[in-house]
Amino acid sequence: MSANTQAVASLHAEVTRLRHELTTVQNAGPSADVSTVAADTMYVGQYLVERLVQLGVTKMFGVPGDFNLGFLDFVEDHPKMDWVGDCNELNASYAADGYARVNEGKPGVLLTTFGVGELSAMNGIAGAFSEHVPVLHIVGVPSTSQQKAKPMLHHTLGDGRYDAYYMAAQQFTISHSSLNSIETAAAEIDRVITDCLVKARPVYLMLPTDIAYMRISATRLKTPLNIEPPANDPETEEFVLDEIVKLVEAAQNDVIILVDACGIRHGVKHELEALCKHTGYPVYAAPMGKSVIDESYSRYGGIYVGEISHDDIKAKVESAKLILSVGGLKSDFNTGNFTYHIPTQRTVELHSDHTLVQFAVFPGIGMKRLMPKLIARLQPYKEGAFQAEVPKFEAPVPKEDNDIISQTWLWPRVGQFFRPKDIVVAETGTSSFGVLDVPLPAGAVFVSQILWGSIGWTVGSTLGAAFAGLDRGMNRTILFVGDGSLQLTVQELSVMIHHGLKPIIFVLNNSGYTIERFLHGKTRKYNDISNWKWTKLLDTLGGEEGKTVRSYTVRTKDELSNLLDDPKFAAAETIQLVELVMEMHDAPRALKVQAELSGKTNRYTA
Amino acid sequence: MSANTQAVASLHAEVTRLRHELTTVQNAGPSADVSTVAADTMYVGQYLVERLVQLGVTKMFGVPGDFNLGFLDFVEDHPKMDWVGDCNELNASYAADGYARVNEGKPGVLLTTFGVGELSAMNGIAGAFSEHVPVLHIVGVPSTSQQKAKPMLHHTLGDGRYDAYYMAAQQFTISHSSLNSIETAAAEIDRVITDCLVKARPVYLMLPTDIAYMRISATRLKTPLNIEPPANDPETEEFVLDEIVKLVEAAQNDVIILVDACGIRHGVKHELEALCKHTGYPVYAAPMGKSVIDESYSRYGGIYVGEISHDDIKAKVESAKLILSVGGLKSDFNTGNFTYHIPTQRTVELHSDHTLVQFAVFPGIGMKRLMPKLIARLQPYKEGAFQAEVPKFEAPVPKEDNDIISQTWLWPRVGQFFRPKDIVVAETGTSSFGVLDVPLPAGAVFVSQILWGSIGWTVGSTLGAAFAGLDRGMNRTILFVGDGSLQLTVQELSVMIHHGLKPIIFVLNNSGYTIERFLHGKTRKYNDISNWKWTKLLDTLGGEEGKTVRSYTVRTKDELSNLLDDPKFAAAETIQLVELVMEMHDAPRALKVQAELSGKTNRYTA
Repeated sequence: MSANTQAVASLHAEVTRLRHELTTVQNAGPSADVSTVAADTMYVGQYLVERLVQLGVTKMFGVPGDFNLGFLDFVEDHPKMDWVGDCNELNASYAADGYARVNEGKPGVLLTTFGVGELSAMNGIAGAFSEHVPVLHIVGVPSTSQQKAKPMLHHTLGDGRYDAYYMAAQQFTISHSSLNSIETAAAEIDRVITDCLVKARPVYLMLPTDIAYMRISATRLKTPLNIEPPANDPETEEFVLDEIVKLVEAAQNDVIILVDACGIRHGVKHELEALCKHTGYPVYAAPMGKSVIDESYSRYGGIYVGEISHDDIKAKVESAKLILSVGGLKSDFNTGNFTYHIPTQRTVELHSDHTLVQFAVFPGIGMKRLMPKLIARLQPYKEGAFQAEVPKFEAPVPKEDNDIISQTWLWPRVGQFFRPKDIVVAETGTSSFGVLDVPLPAGAVFVSQILWGSIGWTVGSTLGAAFAGLDRGMNRTILFVGDGSLQLTVQELSVMIHHGLKPIIFVLNNSGYTIERFLHGKTRKYNDISNWKWTKLLDTLGGEEGKTVRSYTVRTKDELSNLLDDPKFAAAETIQLVELVMEMHDAPRALKVQAELSGKTNRYTA
Repeated sequence: MSANTQAVASLHAEVTRLRHELTTVQNAGPSADVSTVAADTMYVGQYLVERLVQLGVTKMFGVPGDFNLGFLDFVEDHPKMDWVGDCNELNASYAADGYARVNEGKPGVLLTTFGVGELSAMNGIAGAFSEHVPVLHIVGVPSTSQQKAKPMLHHTLGDGRYDAYYMAAQQFTISHSSLNSIETAAAEIDRVITDCLVKARPVYLMLPTDIAYMRISATRLKTPLNIEPPANDPETEEFVLDEIVKLVEAAQNDVIILVDACGIRHGVKHELEALCKHTGYPVYAAPMGKSVIDESYSRYGGIYVGEISHDDIKAKVESAKLILSVGGLKSDFNTGNFTYHIPTQRTVELHSDHTLVQFAVFPGIGMKRLMPKLIARLQPYKEGAFQAEVPKFEAPVPKEDNDIISQTWLWPRVGQFFRPKDIVVAETGTSSFGVLDVPLPAGAVFVSQILWGSIGWTVGSTLGAAFAGLDRGMNRTILFVGDGSLQLTVQELSVMIHHGLKPIIFVLNNSGYTIERFLHGKTRKYNDISNWKWTKLLDTLGGEEGKTVRSYTVRTKDELSNLLDDPKFAAAETIQLVELVMEMHDAPRALKVQAELSGKTNRYTA
């Protein structure tokens, strides 16, 4: 045990060091921010902005509206906070979500106004809930006296119900507060922000016009928020560790690690990296866990997604004697429509707030605290683990005897275009399934919405992701989006142009809702969309074609290859949009299989 | 009493005749539809479509999604129902709302998919609730067996809650149903549609994929839905009539009628017309009641909006001995920020489900049934009512010694451009306040969202309104929208182009959110927006400039006047967009006053 204790200590030290390094990169001196708060009192609105600045948040997304204008003055006036005015609230909520995903640990922040604004963002907030993304939704609301008197103000339902939006919001947020007193305002702000980060879910904060402008003590700001998850019960934790170690022993090094969404959302990326490197176990990712582990890592084997998996990956994962699953989120599209062939008997699942060992549930035993100890306990079994071969996850570009930009050719080809630390955003449907099959370079981040699957989400999300990329010193932001999806949220391109962001946007022009054609209604009119002049979009929405924006249409493999090989294009010095002309009824391999499996469970016709 | 009884009978006959005429125009043979339903059984999805066709609904708005694709087959296959695929769900909900408003009695119908789709539409549905618009929201949801087993499907929250969206929707719909059995499906469909129309509010219908494809008896279709409001209690009603008549007598013909939103939404337009013409009382409208009474009517005096009213209108209304208010909806922007100076003692209020006589409330006494009887009872007092003069509501174009398209000049000038039966849609803010001050020609319809006030709403609403205009044989559809507002929902222009609709769209390019500048933050950056190339929009979004679409920029009074006087432009043979270049800090008179009044109650700064 003493060897283990030592190991635990050294791992703790490593985790602390890594965290510190991360914080330094993400946040130019949070402790400095705390100490520079000199004033004894400040406005509630200022307190809120200051708390977010302390966490390293640099951008607030949203739309101005008459109940949040006063608060916006504080936002605009803070030297370390930038206001990003989005074209609409849904797009803004997507942007806040994308910002949080790429920043890995900072919340995304959304500001809307009472009723009309907040409700427009509801789908975006629900998506963040579904996919464990920390988003703080601040809503500017009528004053506390108006909330009591309940006049028939604009943006109300006309029947005196001032709590209806709050009631609806409760369905999609993990924590909520309607500030109504200066006695509790600061504590309530701290509570919801803490819940947002610890639970990695959206939270909802109603900020009345009068409360925003009341003065409170600034003292609380001197104590940084504690965003560590709660401690595990030591006795239960020890028992769990023993149980896991027994299974590892019995598996005789035939162990694999399977990483998933919550590995990144609940902040165990560094612990996970340490677990992999200390044990040497082969590691695979579920679709939502793509890029949690660097896809360039030598012991990384690719994407496991049940029956949709490539055969060799499927065989490796399903034959392992023990599967250590980290942050699993077993949704239909994340599991090949529930076709995991991994018996519970051979599985250990680590989650943010519980652990499963075979059939046993251990509530309250969270992975963030457990993992360093587990790594230490697994040290003795390290020898031998490296013996298992892990075939490299690759996606060779196929030779095809035609010019068409086919799905089978496209994704491996763009795979060659990716660079380390790129942010790759892929829309639900064709793009998401396509990118899944392609490995990403070191440090690259994959952004997609596989569980919630709201089409159009990537456009707003790309805006937030690109800003987060600046915070984190990432490389390019690259979006793949279908023509149908882009139409939902297209105006957000204008915000990217306005702020001088430089994403590369690939628009798959395949004449409609392709994923839906594969689910039902292959040739139905309702799956058609209107064809736009895609390459005129950036110029129309505020850019200057050839100067501040660049647009391209490519129709053949050669045209696309030439563009991708053009160093000027690859350098991404302006925002660029590439229209890829593709076949209406073509789809990536994984999407076709998913649609078949999905069709078996969803009945659409008699 | 026998004279009255006779009068009631003759009025009933007139109302019946008018209704029949209206139905004939709106709906090419509803009874024929009923009788042609030959089959004994049909699919639940078909039943639903058939019920809507019976009501004269010709368009269904929405976005396809994987849980509604099967049902969409029924929609696409019905010869009398057209599917309008919108660019996103919020826009679609706005379109359904606009369709219902202009059709006056038909519901707007919106189809979305589970979670992602329906939540995106929530603001639009809440707006319809707030403003008493009948919208049926159909949501394609997972099968009944999936709803029981609760797998982690895409579009779910990932925690097994399949009822969360339903819970949220209940806040914003007057009636709701989750179809779960073929025994009750038809009755439930009938119930929610009936509630939608009788209560003039949105309703929510969850249609599971399996239920849509189950067969039920078609017998119920032979009985048309009863969408008449419930009868009033005869004894109470008689008492109320007596009370009103006493007040009328005492007022000695110094009576005015004040019409408002619910006059049109709760279907008493014809009764109201009869009331005005039989009594001769001067009639005024609140902003939300604009165009409920034909603004060309000789006894119509204009818009009353408390302290924002023109002085002569204010004097006439506030000095009357009795005010008969019909369908009042006293929201802030509809009452000059609650500055009505009409004592309760001098007021009778008729509402859809209750009546107020001075301080007395009579629950359950609805105006639809009461009005014909009231008209009959007021017959004896008709003589003399025509003596009161009603100054004509006019808006002369002011002479200004500059070229600038000012707000004071613009609205009277476009007022000259309006024609009988035009549909005039005005965005919340500058446009809405501007159009209010201008009279509309005979049969013209004013469409605005003064209580809910969600910016961007008019763009979707114009789509629905234009379709409804075709149903009703209206003239042109004319939209006034600000640059900031258009950015929220711009993609819906593409749907107008796609369907060959021909609205005229005036874009007020005044560099940002003008109404907000007047509320707070006059020169703040957060009220700025990115400037687009407005005249390239239609071409980019699927049109062919000069052929299927036409775009113009006007910068001076002369340029605008020339355009408005151009017969080709006025003929509206294609969709047309006019960019009006205007001053950033200019606003219509009414908006400036409203903002001042609003500023007194909303505290934005310390």
